[in-house]
Amino acid sequence: MNSSQQRKHTFIQQLLAKSLNPAPLEPSQPHGFGKAPVNIALSKYWGKRDSVLNLPMNGSVSISLPGLGTETTVQPFGGQQDQIELNGQVLDHSVVFAKRLSQFLDFFRSAACPAFRVVTQNSVPTAAGLASSASGYAALVVALDDLFGWQLAKTELSLLARLGSGSASRSLFDGFALWHKGERPDGMDSFAESVDSVWPEFCIGLVKVNTQEKAVGSTLGMQQTVETCDLYQSWPPQAQRDLETITQAIIQQDFHTLAKTAEHNALSMHATMIATWPPIVYWQPESIAAMQIVWRLREQGVAVYFTMDAGPNLKLILQTQDQAIVQQAFAEQSTPVEFILPFQRQ
Amino acid sequence: MNSSQQRKHTFIQQLLAKSLNPAPLEPSQPHGFGKAPVNIALSKYWGKRDSVLNLPMNGSVSISLPGLGTETTVQPFGGQQDQIELNGQVLDHSVVFAKRLSQFLDFFRSAACPAFRVVTQNSVPTAAGLASSASGYAALVVALDDLFGWQLAKTELSLLARLGSGSASRSLFDGFALWHKGERPDGMDSFAESVDSVWPEFCIGLVKVNTQEKAVGSTLGMQQTVETCDLYQSWPPQAQRDLETITQAIIQQDFHTLAKTAEHNALSMHATMIATWPPIVYWQPESIAAMQIVWRLREQGVAVYFTMDAGPNLKLILQTQDQAIVQQAFAEQSTPVEFILPFQRQ
Repeated sequence: MNSSQQRKHTFIQQLLAKSLNPAPLEPSQPHGFGKAPVNIALSKYWGKRDSVLNLPMNGSVSISLPGLGTETTVQPFGGQQDQIELNGQVLDHSVVFAKRLSQFLDFFRSAACPAFRVVTQNSVPTAAGLASSASGYAALVVALDDLFGWQLAKTELSLLARLGSGSASRSLFDGFALWHKGERPDGMDSFAESVDSVWPEFCIGLVKVNTQEKAVGSTLGMQQTVETCDLYQSWPPQAQRDLETITQAIIQQDFHTLAKTAEHNALSMHATMIATWPPIVYWQPESIAAMQIVWRLREQGVAVYFTMDAGPNLKLILQTQDQAIVQQAFAEQSTPVEFILPFQRQ
Repeated sequence: MNSSQQRKHTFIQQLLAKSLNPAPLEPSQPHGFGKAPVNIALSKYWGKRDSVLNLPMNGSVSISLPGLGTETTVQPFGGQQDQIELNGQVLDHSVVFAKRLSQFLDFFRSAACPAFRVVTQNSVPTAAGLASSASGYAALVVALDDLFGWQLAKTELSLLARLGSGSASRSLFDGFALWHKGERPDGMDSFAESVDSVWPEFCIGLVKVNTQEKAVGSTLGMQQTVETCDLYQSWPPQAQRDLETITQAIIQQDFHTLAKTAEHNALSMHATMIATWPPIVYWQPESIAAMQIVWRLREQGVAVYFTMDAGPNLKLILQTQDQAIVQQAFAEQSTPVEFILPFQRQ
């Protein structure tokens, strides 16, 4: 075990000490099941202060999208190596997805469970430009909790999911979730929790402008930004302030403040990428065209805003009352929008 | 005279004290003539520390484009108001261009010269996406110097041109020019001077992606950025450092360092605009497409970089040896490039 693995191992040991199962690496049933939604950050996570424990430079807040996410079953496996099945296909061990997953599972092996069979199903339409790693690791830790009978709290599971993928910490929750930056070097206070607000009119619009692979993965991108972008210095305090503004706006259901701050926050994050060397420009020509549709609608008085992650697609933030006019404006430019109502039964 | 005008007036009085003409507002000949090139900043000017005297937050360095610029004749005029002719057309006094010019000329009126006739010709192809205000105010102050017989040094004229338009301070010079930030509150040390380097292989490529009017003028844009963009805090020190790197690279004719720093600097400036609220995104879809051509060429080993000003067009930075391959790559995307060799007779 190298020192990075050792630190992760220590973190997990600390966490499993909270398990209600006295032997937390003994399966308590034949298989475990977990499901988790994808989430969209309204105030973004960009930059790690600890890349081993995935501790962020700043907190973030998100909305989960019901109906889009991951379902995972995990069980002990007799073979020498894990068997990992994604969307009906058994993956070769050389595939990056399988490798990362097996490295994560390394921390949960025991004599009773030397290898795992993991069956995972993503209902995330790749077309929507949504990252599946967040829902993926969240569903996996729920499934592990189920298999081993830990009965950990969701906030505790979010700590574990964070170790697989930072943004996965937020996918343990429906609705709005707040991932705390935390202060402790051991990372035990950098967890997510639910922000209580039921907001039936709150609507997300997925605009697919491009389905190309990301040019630069977000882990590498964050690292390059932290290392080479002078402007980045001002990002963590801005992000922290935006987070507080947005969290307050969620509680007060102040749509305008929430959406405006979210768009400014996303553009500021992209600004730090653009000012990185070599430049990280996730935007495609179609991204600019879609932004221009949003800004034109706003000039016309329609309260629609957007956020963007480490990719070219826009996620619109609007209220149900403006769905039709927004849909029409995008349809005129031959860009379909898929609407999600996080607080209404789909 | 309001307090802004009073401060400008004081500045000009201070400057005209250096005139070799003992009565600096008495014309010494029937008309004055001036010409000046446009310039492209390699290290950008974005943000004023004094908006009355056009004192910048940071210094900048530029390359002038020979053959593109402004020629201006100025003479006393008998009428009640100035007569301003631009590219063969007499302008109405309500036109912004004419208004700004007359306000500038207010500081040079006297009994002998109550009004001016200004005939100005821009050879700047509007298609190239180049600002004409820099060459315009530079040519005007040269013409005024000629009319009034001041015989001011070019560095002194650059102080005067700066009052009309910040970047005009750099258009007094051929080749590379450095506009010093200056420290003094009276602005007398914020002038430009020539950076001595004759570099025959140095080449600029004008890529016209869009000729639309700017959405946000640069004066207002700068102000909004300074007021609302958190990331802007880190811009002045970065710009100052980039300026020094680029100036050294000019002197050493280190193309790679110069061009790389210029692209990073331009993207960082645009990043501060993008992180402004409301967002200032000068980029058009075609801007991203053109950037992608540049980055693809670089992946193929071609040393081509770009810079961008407060607009959607790219200005390529390359060496003559790569002109053909760059031209071809852009032609394949139906985007023509106009090449300018600043150190070769056109």
